[in-house]
Amino acid sequence: MKKEIRLLGIDDSPFTFNEKYTRIFGVVMRGGNYLECVLSSQISVDGDDSTSIVRDMIENTRHKMQIKAILLDGIALGGFNVIDIEKIYKDTKIPIITITRDKPDFDKIKTALKKNFQDWKKRWNLVNKGKLHEVKTSHNPIYIKFMGLSIDEAKEIIKLSTIRGVVPEPIRVAHLIASGVTRGESYGKA
Amino acid sequence: MKKEIRLLGIDDSPFTFNEKYTRIFGVVMRGGNYLECVLSSQISVDGDDSTSIVRDMIENTRHKMQIKAILLDGIALGGFNVIDIEKIYKDTKIPIITITRDKPDFDKIKTALKKNFQDWKKRWNLVNKGKLHEVKTSHNPIYIKFMGLSIDEAKEIIKLSTIRGVVPEPIRVAHLIASGVTRGESYGKA
Repeated sequence: MKKEIRLLGIDDSPFTFNEKYTRIFGVVMRGGNYLECVLSSQISVDGDDSTSIVRDMIENTRHKMQIKAILLDGIALGGFNVIDIEKIYKDTKIPIITITRDKPDFDKIKTALKKNFQDWKKRWNLVNKGKLHEVKTSHNPIYIKFMGLSIDEAKEIIKLSTIRGVVPEPIRVAHLIASGVTRGESYGKA
Repeated sequence: MKKEIRLLGIDDSPFTFNEKYTRIFGVVMRGGNYLECVLSSQISVDGDDSTSIVRDMIENTRHKMQIKAILLDGIALGGFNVIDIEKIYKDTKIPIITITRDKPDFDKIKTALKKNFQDWKKRWNLVNKGKLHEVKTSHNPIYIKFMGLSIDEAKEIIKLSTIRGVVPEPIRVAHLIASGVTRGESYGKA
């Protein structure tokens, strides 16, 4: 795999639950080194539009044909606006990898969905798409799901795009932008 | 000079003259490679607050003590909101470099200032602070002004932080963020 493959990383902005919408940011990078493009859009907090808006972000960028994989910070944006990673992959034909630093607590997620959403079953089904894998790193392990590529390819993409710590640059940079744009100064890790 | 010195690059968002305010973005990078922080603030289009707002952006970031130089995309942000680079340097004690890809047409600037601003003399004085230097690159030359460092140091900082083309990464990345946040997809060069 070439070190300079184009990757799209996506993360959402910090928000409060008083807000109806939050912004999401995409960055196209060559491997983990060179920023080529910044994308932004808006999704509803706890809504159900993240799949279509992420898909549109991918379909509409002039970089689409160059993007070899989509990296998402977890399976949901804007609270419980869960992304249908299978649909994104089927529609765009671009492999997709979700990454979290903490092991998802599925019991807790299910309880929260049941408590807060009439359509919890639909969201729960989306949460469960793809198998969760633990991936060892030189620091703590990370947890990933993926569609459209093998686990070895997913691991290779993560490795080639991670510079410091365990978060691939396209997600880390999308997080810094989302945080800095919203708060005035970026804080925290993706 | 170390290759990984911290640099702050600043650029403004695209705007129309119907808008009263526009956003500015700062990025702290290690040399030309690693993004550490994203800052954002707001200035008035054609106003006179860019000096104080850029200074506050620098004074308030937790990275201030690490920043070895400030790189600005030209001498003004938000139209003719001209920055007093001497004041920024005196207040923050951090060297500052302004960079443009095109040679400034000072006659044209003076005419525009006279035509549009009662306080044109004040703005014109700020435009003229620092001597303009042409710097050769492997592509087209760029035009710089600087305060608080020698021309050789300024050239070295520009060289170590430029990866492709002629624009140092901190300015190029600030430009991509400003453009992507405002337009949905980033376009153009800083």
